[in-house]
Amino acid sequence: MKAIVYDEELKFVTDYKKPSIKPHEALIKPLLLGICNTDEEITKGYMGYKGVLGHEFVGVVEECDDKSFMGKRVVGEINLGCKNCPECSAGLERHCKNRSTLGIFKKDGCFSEYFTLPVSNLLLVPENVEDETAVFVEPLAAAYEIFEQIQIKPKDKVAILGDGKLGLCVSMIFSALNVDYTHIGKHSKKLSITKNLGGKIKFLSEINEKDIKSYDIVVEATGSTGGFETSLSLVKPRGILVLKSTIAAKEGLNLAQVVIDEITILGSRCGQFEPVLRLMEKGKIDTKPLITKVLSFDEALLGFELNRKKETIKILLKP
Amino acid sequence: MKAIVYDEELKFVTDYKKPSIKPHEALIKPLLLGICNTDEEITKGYMGYKGVLGHEFVGVVEECDDKSFMGKRVVGEINLGCKNCPECSAGLERHCKNRSTLGIFKKDGCFSEYFTLPVSNLLLVPENVEDETAVFVEPLAAAYEIFEQIQIKPKDKVAILGDGKLGLCVSMIFSALNVDYTHIGKHSKKLSITKNLGGKIKFLSEINEKDIKSYDIVVEATGSTGGFETSLSLVKPRGILVLKSTIAAKEGLNLAQVVIDEITILGSRCGQFEPVLRLMEKGKIDTKPLITKVLSFDEALLGFELNRKKETIKILLKP
Repeated sequence: MKAIVYDEELKFVTDYKKPSIKPHEALIKPLLLGICNTDEEITKGYMGYKGVLGHEFVGVVEECDDKSFMGKRVVGEINLGCKNCPECSAGLERHCKNRSTLGIFKKDGCFSEYFTLPVSNLLLVPENVEDETAVFVEPLAAAYEIFEQIQIKPKDKVAILGDGKLGLCVSMIFSALNVDYTHIGKHSKKLSITKNLGGKIKFLSEINEKDIKSYDIVVEATGSTGGFETSLSLVKPRGILVLKSTIAAKEGLNLAQVVIDEITILGSRCGQFEPVLRLMEKGKIDTKPLITKVLSFDEALLGFELNRKKETIKILLKP
Repeated sequence: MKAIVYDEELKFVTDYKKPSIKPHEALIKPLLLGICNTDEEITKGYMGYKGVLGHEFVGVVEECDDKSFMGKRVVGEINLGCKNCPECSAGLERHCKNRSTLGIFKKDGCFSEYFTLPVSNLLLVPENVEDETAVFVEPLAAAYEIFEQIQIKPKDKVAILGDGKLGLCVSMIFSALNVDYTHIGKHSKKLSITKNLGGKIKFLSEINEKDIKSYDIVVEATGSTGGFETSLSLVKPRGILVLKSTIAAKEGLNLAQVVIDEITILGSRCGQFEPVLRLMEKGKIDTKPLITKVLSFDEALLGFELNRKKETIKILLKP
C-alpha cells in the first residue's frame, strides 16, 4: 500500500505492507490527514522514530470486532498505553511509561492507505461534523489540555505567543471558551484569524514596557528559544508560562528569573478528544481559516515542503 | 563604622558611614549574622549590586519611633516594597516591582555595625529562641515558601536534591512538617544531618533506574545545571520540580522533556518568617548541626573564604 515513511529520509512508498488487526483493534482507512510540525521534527531526528508518519486523521473503520464501530467515521487518541500501570488506570495513557504513540514512537502512523488503532482509542465523529473539521481534533485537544491542567479565571490576563498552527489552535479553543486573551505574533494574515474570532491581537514588534511582567498566563507556542524568553518576560511574578512547543534541542534559559519571580513553567502536551468533539458538534469551531491547502495523498512530499513555508498554516492530505 | 562591602571587590572597611533612620524605620545592631551563597554570588556580579552585603541576621533595635520594638531582639524580612502596588497590597512585598532587598538590591545589607529596616519588616524573636537559631529564620523561611506555593500531600514521594545550606534548610522544614522525603546528595557528613532528623538519605551515585521518573515532587537545591537535569529525570510525569537555586548564568535545558511529561517547574524564593518562628518557639528546629564555624565580625573575609569550601555548611559572624 501507499505510505509516507521516514527512515533516515522522508519517502513516499507504494509497497508498504498493509497492517492486519489484532483483537480489540480497528483497521482504519483515512478520509483526511493533517501534517503537524511534529512530523517535520521527526524528519530531523525527533524521538529517533522510523516508520510510517502521521497522527492527525479522520477515517472510516473497515475491520473491527466491535460492531458499533464498523463502517463508522472515527477520530482516535494517539497514545497507546499498556492498560496495566497506575497512569493507564487513571486514564492517563498519554503518560504511560510503556506507551507507543501513533506515527511518533514505536507505532506506525496514519499516513498510509490503512492503519490500525485499539478500539478503545477511537471516538465516533458526530454526523454534523465535516471531515475538514474533525481532522483538527488532535491539535485542538492539545490546546484544550491547558484547561485540564490549570484554572484560567474569568479576569485573568492571558497571552498566546506564536501564530503558527499550535498558537492558532490555542486561540480557537480560548475563543470558544470565552478567555480574555491577546494573541501575539508576526503574521497579519494569521493573526487576522484570531481577530475574526473576536480575540485581541498584537504584533511582536508592538510589545512594550507595559506588557512586561503583566500577564497572569502566557502560552508559549513559538517553538523557539527567543519566543520562550519573550514569554518569560511577559509573565508577571507568580504567573504561569504554559509551554506547548515540543523542542528537541537543548535551549538556553535564564533560570534566575524563574526563581526570582516564582514563575510556574507548565509543560503541556496531548489532550482528550471528547470536549473538542463536543465543541465541534455544537458548531463552535470553524477550522476552515486554518486550512492552507488540501492535497491528494500522492502529493504528500509536496505537502511537507509547503508545511515548511512561513505562510502555511495547515496542509491536509486526501487519500 | 565597620562594614563588609562589595564594590567590584569584597572589602572589610572601617569607615562606612553609620546610617540614620527615617520615620517608620528601625536602627538595628546585629547580634549574629549568616553568610549565604547569594552573598557569594553577588561578589561574582549577581544583581549588579554594590554596597554593604548581608541579609541574614538577628539583632537588637537601638533606635525606632515604635516603642514596642525598642531594645528588642528582632529578625527582619529582607524585601522592602513600595506599599502602593497590587503586590504590596496582597502582602507580596517580595514581588513588588519597585522593591529593594537588604544587601542584594538597592539597599545596604546587615554586614555592618548598624543597619536600618522599616519597622513593618521586623518580627520579635521569642525569648526562648537563641541567637544561633534565630539567625537561620531567613533561609528556613525560603524553604517554608514551598508550602505557600504547593500542597504536599501526606503520601507524596518527595526528593530534595543537593545537600548544601539550602538543601539542608529544606530538609529541616520537611522533617518538622512530617513530609516523607529522600535527601539526595554527595556528602555523608551533610546527609547525616538529615539522617539524624529521621529523613531518608541517598547518595547521588546510588540513583538507579527505579528512581527515574518516580518522584511526585523534587526540590532542586544544587544550583548546578547537572543537578537541574538530574532533578528533571527524577520527576514523574505531571510531577513538580521546585526550583530553589538562584542561578545567574544561562543554563542549558531540554525543554522537550518538560512538555512530553507535562512537568511543572516552579520557581521558589523568599518566604514568610512567622511560621518559621512558630516552629522555633516550639523547639522544633535545631540549627546547631548547620553551623560550621562562628567567627568574629573582623574575620568576615576569612568567613567568605571558608564559605567557598565544600565541607562548609553555614558560617556565622558575631559582631
